[in-house]
Amino acid sequence: MRHFVEELEQLKTKLLEMSSLVEAAIQRSIGAVINKDRSAAEEVFRNETRINEIELEIDEFAINLLALHQPMAADLRLIIAALKINTDLERMGDLAVNVAERAQSLLNEPVSKPMIDIPHIAALVQSMVRKALDAFVARDPDLARSVLASDDAVDSLRTACYHELVSFMEKDPRNIRPALDLLAVTRNLERIADHSTNIAEDVLFLVKGVDVRHHAEARR
Amino acid sequence: MRHFVEELEQLKTKLLEMSSLVEAAIQRSIGAVINKDRSAAEEVFRNETRINEIELEIDEFAINLLALHQPMAADLRLIIAALKINTDLERMGDLAVNVAERAQSLLNEPVSKPMIDIPHIAALVQSMVRKALDAFVARDPDLARSVLASDDAVDSLRTACYHELVSFMEKDPRNIRPALDLLAVTRNLERIADHSTNIAEDVLFLVKGVDVRHHAEARR
Repeated sequence: MRHFVEELEQLKTKLLEMSSLVEAAIQRSIGAVINKDRSAAEEVFRNETRINEIELEIDEFAINLLALHQPMAADLRLIIAALKINTDLERMGDLAVNVAERAQSLLNEPVSKPMIDIPHIAALVQSMVRKALDAFVARDPDLARSVLASDDAVDSLRTACYHELVSFMEKDPRNIRPALDLLAVTRNLERIADHSTNIAEDVLFLVKGVDVRHHAEARR
Repeated sequence: MRHFVEELEQLKTKLLEMSSLVEAAIQRSIGAVINKDRSAAEEVFRNETRINEIELEIDEFAINLLALHQPMAADLRLIIAALKINTDLERMGDLAVNVAERAQSLLNEPVSKPMIDIPHIAALVQSMVRKALDAFVARDPDLARSVLASDDAVDSLRTACYHELVSFMEKDPRNIRPALDLLAVTRNLERIADHSTNIAEDVLFLVKGVDVRHHAEARR
């Protein structure tokens, strides 16, 4: 049983390693867009493989824990939450790669247009990611709920950006390609925010739990 | 134990109900775009709530099965695969809603442009969804692998569509808004294809399994 407790700790450590990698990828991809930083984009591409590897490791590790120890209640919830958060983190890593690709494409299409609200959306999304992961580490339901509350703000910022970028395209056809890249950046940032809310929901599930006791007692 | 076997069957039945709903939503959303069918789009919006409800039911049901029966090996894999497939199906339902929203927006922006390759992409994506779900029901690894093989075809069709739609926008600024909707349709269809490949990968995991025996034996 001590073994199992250690293994649960190992699972959490692996998930934290994964989340640091994904957070760094998001930060670099945003830096690549905002600062036109080619090397930051390349760093994102280089780290993608490690993120994919660690996703598989975590999945296998968690499933082995379920198979070998058949945990109940809080431990079961922790492992299920780890599986779900792992999937979300891997998708967030993919989305950071998408952002970095658009950053690269923007380097080849000089835009006169300022970045509009992109730094603003990016800052909000990054704080959601941070809070969702901190909420998981601290098992803090209030922090998790604060992530859910930010989702609407990201949506409305993105909608405002969409209309602004469409007008920018309509003004001059030379703006179409860079504006499509910027639209893709905002869309991918919004999807990163969505995955943060998924993680926050998993934290709430982890902390409050699904009530399995009622069924268990009825059956005995 | 007979109870558990029945409950596993119930889990599969619920997942099949979910997958029929999601498949119908995808079909209707595509019909709404291609045939400019407003009522098909509205049907997609109406069914979204049921899809979200059944996702929660399946999740809770699966987690209860894990908690109450602590299954091993093949049964454990089935439940984990059901949890993952459930998440993918719910996202596919969301993407069908996105497609239906773009269909609605296209109704208000008459386009002279034909639908380019959209019917072609749509047919391919629908066959991937169908095959992935059939592979799950029949536990057929060859069928699952055929889904993975189609993913590149969808990607290259979508890339061709992208370039064609960008040229269409550059030709006349009045084309920008409808072309953005069509771009969004192809992007959402591609994401539906991605989720089908996730399901196909889950089927391969279910059929072949992660090798937990090695660890189990070492520990005894």
